[in-house]
Amino acid sequence: MIINPDNVPHRTTSVYPEVFKSRLMGRVKQALGNAVGLNNFGVNLVTLAPGSCSALRHWHLQQDEFIYIIQGEATLVTNTGEQILTPGMMAGFPAAEADGHQLVNKSQAVVIYLEVGDRTPGEVVYYPDDDLIAKSSDDGRWIFTHRDGDLYEI
Amino acid sequence: MIINPDNVPHRTTSVYPEVFKSRLMGRVKQALGNAVGLNNFGVNLVTLAPGSCSALRHWHLQQDEFIYIIQGEATLVTNTGEQILTPGMMAGFPAAEADGHQLVNKSQAVVIYLEVGDRTPGEVVYYPDDDLIAKSSDDGRWIFTHRDGDLYEI
Repeated sequence: MIINPDNVPHRTTSVYPEVFKSRLMGRVKQALGNAVGLNNFGVNLVTLAPGSCSALRHWHLQQDEFIYIIQGEATLVTNTGEQILTPGMMAGFPAAEADGHQLVNKSQAVVIYLEVGDRTPGEVVYYPDDDLIAKSSDDGRWIFTHRDGDLYEI
Repeated sequence: MIINPDNVPHRTTSVYPEVFKSRLMGRVKQALGNAVGLNNFGVNLVTLAPGSCSALRHWHLQQDEFIYIIQGEATLVTNTGEQILTPGMMAGFPAAEADGHQLVNKSQAVVIYLEVGDRTPGEVVYYPDDDLIAKSSDDGRWIFTHRDGDLYEI
């Protein structure tokens, strides 16, 4: 199935608990893989307005993640510090590498990139800068807790 | 891990049996996902010279496939016929949809695209236009047979 991304719905909200949602303002995701009927992995086209970011800085226990820059200048934040990614550059974040990552748009222009992630079950996402842990449930939802295990109010 | 694709090795050969290899002349693959240490899925940057093609027309039994056009004009060939894909367009080929697909570069300029596929084991690839079936072995190799099950000489 062929799709022009212009026809794929734009999602501007995040799945994070309320207290974190405002940090994702300016991020737009389009679920390209879902739009063409794929199940085994997800592919999103992500647009970051100036000042916005991809996610809270995080790393995955089970799932690999890949990003490819299409337009603009993205700042990748990891334990290493900040690195600039320009169109045609890519980065990969193998499962279980305990180095949180986040893309931030520190430029004055829009950043557009593709992100790919598999859907290995039993996923846990760690957020080294925040009091947050996410676990995938058997029915495909995310369960967010504090580090002490207490559930966030959604 | 960040990578500039210029630094990722170029593979110009195909894994097909000898009798089919010449049809893949002009195709260059760079295994971006492997280069950044990913295991759960593969991401390749593929360059097609004018007149070359992505693969023999095929479909996957277990694995999803996704492509995103970065540069040039690619002709997608499926049971539907021919459709032109331009930069920013994408296509998905869900596992077990028995409609073979192939990208052909019928233009006078280079085509560049990203392809993503997962690595679900027990894969079988069907080639509706050729006397060929491919099965993945437990050790990660491809075993190519005729439709009657006879092995190809490699």
